[in-house]
Amino acid sequence: MTIFGFFRRSGSAGAEGPVRELAQLCDALLAESGEYASTALAREAVARWHLLDQAAREQFFDVLATDYSPAEAQLQAAAAAYQAEPSSDHLIQLQQASESPRRELFDRLNMTPGGTAALVEMRKVLLARVRARPQWRLLDYDLRRRLRSWFNRGFLRLERIDWRTPAIILEKLIEYEAVHAIQGWRDLQRRLEADRRCFAFFHPQLPEEPIIFIEVALTRSMSAHIQPLLDIGSPVRTANCDCAMFYSITNCQEGLRGISFGNQLIKQVAEELRREFPHLRRFATLSPLAGFRRWLEQKRVEQPKELAPLARLDQPDWHLGEVPDSLQRLLLRLCAFYLVNVKQEGGGNAEPLDAVARFHLGNGAALERLNWMGDISETGMARSAGLMVNYVYRLSEVERNHERYFREHAIAASAAVEKMARECLLAAPAEKGAAA
Amino acid sequence: MTIFGFFRRSGSAGAEGPVRELAQLCDALLAESGEYASTALAREAVARWHLLDQAAREQFFDVLATDYSPAEAQLQAAAAAYQAEPSSDHLIQLQQASESPRRELFDRLNMTPGGTAALVEMRKVLLARVRARPQWRLLDYDLRRRLRSWFNRGFLRLERIDWRTPAIILEKLIEYEAVHAIQGWRDLQRRLEADRRCFAFFHPQLPEEPIIFIEVALTRSMSAHIQPLLDIGSPVRTANCDCAMFYSITNCQEGLRGISFGNQLIKQVAEELRREFPHLRRFATLSPLAGFRRWLEQKRVEQPKELAPLARLDQPDWHLGEVPDSLQRLLLRLCAFYLVNVKQEGGGNAEPLDAVARFHLGNGAALERLNWMGDISETGMARSAGLMVNYVYRLSEVERNHERYFREHAIAASAAVEKMARECLLAAPAEKGAAA
Amino acid sequence: MTIFGFFRRSGSAGAEGPVRELAQLCDALLAESGEYASTALAREAVARWHLLDQAAREQFFDVLATDYSPAEAQLQAAAAAYQAEPSSDHLIQLQQASESPRRELFDRLNMTPGGTAALVEMRKVLLARVRARPQWRLLDYDLRRRLRSWFNRGFLRLERIDWRTPAIILEKLIEYEAVHAIQGWRDLQRRLEADRRCFAFFHPQLPEEPIIFIEVALTRSMSAHIQPLLDIGSPVRTANCDCAMFYSITNCQEGLRGISFGNQLIKQVAEELRREFPHLRRFATLSPLAGFRRWLEQKRVEQPKELAPLARLDQPDWHLGEVPDSLQRLLLRLCAFYLVNVKQEGGGNAEPLDAVARFHLGNGAALERLNWMGDISETGMARSAGLMVNYVYRLSEVERNHERYFREHAIAASAAVEKMARECLLAAPAEKGAAA
Amino acid sequence: MTIFGFFRRSGSAGAEGPVRELAQLCDALLAESGEYASTALAREAVARWHLLDQAAREQFFDVLATDYSPAEAQLQAAAAAYQAEPSSDHLIQLQQASESPRRELFDRLNMTPGGTAALVEMRKVLLARVRARPQWRLLDYDLRRRLRSWFNRGFLRLERIDWRTPAIILEKLIEYEAVHAIQGWRDLQRRLEADRRCFAFFHPQLPEEPIIFIEVALTRSMSAHIQPLLDIGSPVRTANCDCAMFYSITNCQEGLRGISFGNQLIKQVAEELRREFPHLRRFATLSPLAGFRRWLEQKRVEQPKELAPLARLDQPDWHLGEVPDSLQRLLLRLCAFYLVNVKQEGGGNAEPLDAVARFHLGNGAALERLNWMGDISETGMARSAGLMVNYVYRLSEVERNHERYFREHAIAASAAVEKMARECLLAAPAEKGAAA
Repeated sequence: MTIFGFFRRSGSAGAEGPVRELAQLCDALLAESGEYASTALAREAVARWHLLDQAAREQFFDVLATDYSPAEAQLQAAAAAYQAEPSSDHLIQLQQASESPRRELFDRLNMTPGGTAALVEMRKVLLARVRARPQWRLLDYDLRRRLRSWFNRGFLRLERIDWRTPAIILEKLIEYEAVHAIQGWRDLQRRLEADRRCFAFFHPQLPEEPIIFIEVALTRSMSAHIQPLLDIGSPVRTANCDCAMFYSITNCQEGLRGISFGNQLIKQVAEELRREFPHLRRFATLSPLAGFRRWLEQKRVEQPKELAPLARLDQPDWHLGEVPDSLQRLLLRLCAFYLVNVKQEGGGNAEPLDAVARFHLGNGAALERLNWMGDISETGMARSAGLMVNYVYRLSEVERNHERYFREHAIAASAAVEKMARECLLAAPAEKGAAA
Repeated sequence: MTIFGFFRRSGSAGAEGPVRELAQLCDALLAESGEYASTALAREAVARWHLLDQAAREQFFDVLATDYSPAEAQLQAAAAAYQAEPSSDHLIQLQQASESPRRELFDRLNMTPGGTAALVEMRKVLLARVRARPQWRLLDYDLRRRLRSWFNRGFLRLERIDWRTPAIILEKLIEYEAVHAIQGWRDLQRRLEADRRCFAFFHPQLPEEPIIFIEVALTRSMSAHIQPLLDIGSPVRTANCDCAMFYSITNCQEGLRGISFGNQLIKQVAEELRREFPHLRRFATLSPLAGFRRWLEQKRVEQPKELAPLARLDQPDWHLGEVPDSLQRLLLRLCAFYLVNVKQEGGGNAEPLDAVARFHLGNGAALERLNWMGDISETGMARSAGLMVNYVYRLSEVERNHERYFREHAIAASAAVEKMARECLLAAPAEKGAAA
Repeated sequence: MTIFGFFRRSGSAGAEGPVRELAQLCDALLAESGEYASTALAREAVARWHLLDQAAREQFFDVLATDYSPAEAQLQAAAAAYQAEPSSDHLIQLQQASESPRRELFDRLNMTPGGTAALVEMRKVLLARVRARPQWRLLDYDLRRRLRSWFNRGFLRLERIDWRTPAIILEKLIEYEAVHAIQGWRDLQRRLEADRRCFAFFHPQLPEEPIIFIEVALTRSMSAHIQPLLDIGSPVRTANCDCAMFYSITNCQEGLRGISFGNQLIKQVAEELRREFPHLRRFATLSPLAGFRRWLEQKRVEQPKELAPLARLDQPDWHLGEVPDSLQRLLLRLCAFYLVNVKQEGGGNAEPLDAVARFHLGNGAALERLNWMGDISETGMARSAGLMVNYVYRLSEVERNHERYFREHAIAASAAVEKMARECLLAAPAEKGAAA
Repeated sequence: MTIFGFFRRSGSAGAEGPVRELAQLCDALLAESGEYASTALAREAVARWHLLDQAAREQFFDVLATDYSPAEAQLQAAAAAYQAEPSSDHLIQLQQASESPRRELFDRLNMTPGGTAALVEMRKVLLARVRARPQWRLLDYDLRRRLRSWFNRGFLRLERIDWRTPAIILEKLIEYEAVHAIQGWRDLQRRLEADRRCFAFFHPQLPEEPIIFIEVALTRSMSAHIQPLLDIGSPVRTANCDCAMFYSITNCQEGLRGISFGNQLIKQVAEELRREFPHLRRFATLSPLAGFRRWLEQKRVEQPKELAPLARLDQPDWHLGEVPDSLQRLLLRLCAFYLVNVKQEGGGNAEPLDAVARFHLGNGAALERLNWMGDISETGMARSAGLMVNYVYRLSEVERNHERYFREHAIAASAAVEKMARECLLAAPAEKGAAA
């Protein structure tokens, strides 16, 4: 096609064969006036992107990062003009000059079927290497902004996942599940039985790709242990369930990292469940402690004497057989302290160190209960010393908790958990005093 | 809700009751951190927007234009920083400082069901008054950018419209049709019979609102007259059709003005028709001349002597009875000249004055034939002196025509039309010479 | 196709060209062994049926009635064998010998897409003339049995009809509505607004043909007058509705006459409404009196003196202006008497003369209230002297009413209606005595 | 419910608790007049059927067989009346008297959701024991007639099965596949890849139950061996495929035994494939020989001397290592003879002994080729001595083959196969002579 010849940006000159050709396609696509931008060019460009190998993809990112950035001279001029006279016209000029041309390029690539999926995948590849390549940061920023606009929560559909769902989607759940791995089709089927619920967000452009999904168990009273919930052979019980236990939530699209859906998903799912089961009395999670054990090891180094009893944790299978009450008490108090008092950057008013805690507390949930040997899987032992947490979503408090968390990072915790945190040997004397 | 109190921008202070309340909702919505932005707030804000009367809506636009613009001081600082050192970080800061907060506000309003529709309607209201309010221009620019991203052509679905389509959509075709008004359900039904096709683009967020639609007649040979096509009583004939006549194309959403879909629609529809009817030999339009008569009147003022024979056009029903050959010839030549030589800003290399010509020629169609008394409706006589044009889409030439139009505004016209244009008494001697 | 030649029944010999060809197709279709019966033959036969004119269709019915009946000799033999020894084998033989071969033919015609629709239409044509052709009775019986099996209520889907329904279905409602004619699309649209409901049964083989439909108005208190319900300009009110008024029910398929769906439709619609509007307190009809005026005229002939005051009814517009209380009372009592006491065959234990009463009372509804000037349309005056009835479906009584109706034809009526019936001057003295 | 009391047939008196209650429900259901037959009763009856244990179910069949048969006295009378005067009225009376009341009962049970499925299951249970209970034969006949009418091929939808199909359907394929067992989800997925096709018939009342399904492989040239087709690890190849190989067809519903769908399925699937792949040149099967080995063993007993070389087949793994040409030739000729000459009841004009051959030849396919070691699975060796057959469906011959098969049971076979049959040592001298 001679179409490639007549518009050319300078920078792709350095790139090799397939990357240069792709860059020329992108130039041609951008050269069109908006109305006529060719979906044929977009389709071709997307097809070629898929054919690039890893090295070529990185080269292509270099081209995008260099050649499709705002033109410095123009931007300098626009900045100067605005400074001289901050008028409406100068503002528009400044906005236009500061916007990277690659945003428009992303818009146009998105016109073709499969365009959205390709751009999500492009960002996934980008993110895997962006730390090592600071020159891609602005490129990532632009791409994320575009994806964020397209994956606006207004465009997502909540769908129930069950045994009637197409296999092509179900197999992705098996592949993506990040919290409690799914062991094949039989395991999946148990998680979709009548006493379980699974919901996912979908986007119209990715009809066979869940964006995020959540797994729920309907139980009698609040679950303290994850193994019985995951047991493939457990009987299916639907009668007299009064709790909805959120036990797993997984973001599926690495390419959408930094665009959040979880808060919204939990709220919609809770509404959905309330409609289907008006008699549910409690919505709670059974959650892992994302970094408890790691933090513990660090503390043991800092305070070897006080934490000497934790030496038992170094033995394999330390939790089998009898565990002394004193050790149980110690670990539970440390755990409470970890959740309530340990902050991201050294305490004070910062957010909690624990990522799962940040998520649920930010959503307005309350820290309700710690569960001894809540998860005795290998992962559970290694990650959380076997402990699990229940966060509770109380309709009447969610809004208030959420506000307080955001204003002051105040943590809503039950009296029992607060008491354990105060009794922890790491608690400051003032805190202990408050306990008296 | 006490929620309204804790975040407040300054400007809405001047606004009255409902507008102030809506502005406070918008403040609260923006105040949330991204992940937790409340759909409840968005829903409430959208609901209140719908309740505002015209005066309040304009007041709200004033608030949006003033309070949700980039903060001047910050932007000045960011511009200065970038000028001092055009680093990646400074660029991101400048981008962020120059982006109006209302874009983020639009993103968040869009989260709620009905949000997209409300924003499209908001822009419709805005456009109706923006000429009188230059201070809204930047607001309109921001809103259009957001809508343009969401109505990216990749998100649109092409759907066939026929008698199986829900009535709630069909009634909108009756309401919106802008080229040849639809006279009720009976007329609509005829336009959806077996020898007609109708297609529309839909967006997932506006499932019952066509964005743009096109009407097509399947005919034997290229139609020269619109009245037989519109005749409700005409027999339905599907055998031996070899032409697809595009006879009407209507943009439905005033709030999406300036975001173009027509080019894409015609291409996809042509593909669709080619698939269904492999034997079609020609894709052509039967189009009005958007401004022929108006241009003619102006010319009559400028060149009264030469155009004296046009006096007959001042009589009502001048086209009934015998029209002298000389007058026919004169009008057809003037029409050809109007299409081929009359440009938007006084000729030269500019685009044609006629909006319909700009659209189809820009799409890559060729100006094929002028049709005497192609549209003898009142509108047709008043607008185009009864003339109509056929633009032809030839697969093998569309790309080339499109490119030449965009590079040089070169017009692809048939030899017959070009000859008539050269023979027009308004043609410059050089042009006439070329005709010799 | 030589296929037509090799199996031939005798009788079609007399038939003319197209009918003979169709009969030969039917022979060929029947000649195949069951598993291999050709859908191509079925398709061809159905296509040819559609091409027959009225005379040819009647000729074809003659062929079906004659040639596709049980073979008399075989049946005689089977009957004799069974009489001699009523064994299982002989019973099967007798069943097979007595079953008309046309039933199998109908089964096979039904294999092709459009087959079911063609057979429904065939019966419609047949019914229009069957009174004049007693020799078709058995044919009709066989066809009805087949249709009855295929239109088993288990196969019907209840669907809501609203403004989202495809136009191709909506136009059929306009065409079919038999109780209160629909005056075009505007009228239809009003009947589908938020304070109305419309439901229909559909069959998978006739996806665009309603089988039966019902129209419901949601009202505050039980409606007494039909005109306000039908008023196109009436305001749409959904707040505080406590009654669902069934005001029209129409069987759409003449070819399914004698196969009843109404009882089932009312029950499912009531359940559907109860689910959507848990606060509805009453399900009632606003029904015409199918034959009141006709019966009245007959009574006037039989008892001219007692019914002399009814002479006023002979005047046009007799109900406009003041109607004497005595006449009102007389008419209402006659109406009550007509519904409660007048039976199909001269009284006693038979079913009521009024067809609408039979339908609702048989369903388990109770005769609740008579409404003076409930329907003042021309039809309403001519049919029911302007009166209408409310039948009420009370969940707790429906089953009991239904049973008592079926055992003894006992009529559930309100005390008020029963009192009026007893006070009627036509009531027997004993009945009057019971009133004392 | 007192409802059970008021209608009672005599016979169920002997039945025990749950069976008697069910029978009483059936009585009550039948007692209703047609229009009002209660779906509540039907639902209850179906629910109770599901609760019966095996013994109770058999008891219930006894009740159905006895009490819901035609009343002998009435039938005798009707037979006599018809014999005396074979009028239309007497014929209807005879038809009605000979029709078992249980047919009407089945109609009414079918009204409730799940009714059809329950009746299909009822027949499955019935068939499992009907040989031992000749008194159920008429009951089975009646039930089959009803199911046959409801499962009329006009009501079936052909649906493609692929990886987008709901898991609830896919797992049934794994469960039902009868020809080449599916080894779990991975195996299934391979059979649904881009170079495979799978289609099934569905009935609107059993939306999640395939009725019959067929598996197809798209290949280059006609496949001779089944193992490569079934190999999970085989590469997916779609380019240049010119053959559609039907390699498995499974009837899923035991309760529909005797109602044939295969012929129709093959035809529709062939049409579907021709539409999707216009370049396919051949539609063929790769089929097992249903009873070859069994027949062979019988022949060995009858003609021990001639068939002595077959002794090798008694060794396990006889086909591994070198097999003498002479044995190959012998077996192939015996196989050809078996297919071409061995008939169901001793030869002559009867249908072939081999059930698979009957099916495809009856459909109009031709016996094309025998494949040495076409199926070396354990089953394949045991059933067919490792041989497989290709039957070919040639569009231009199917109709003719089908006719000839049905008129004379003529078998369409390729010259090569016919030659082998003639050369078989079991062939009669005349046949051999014909070969000379």
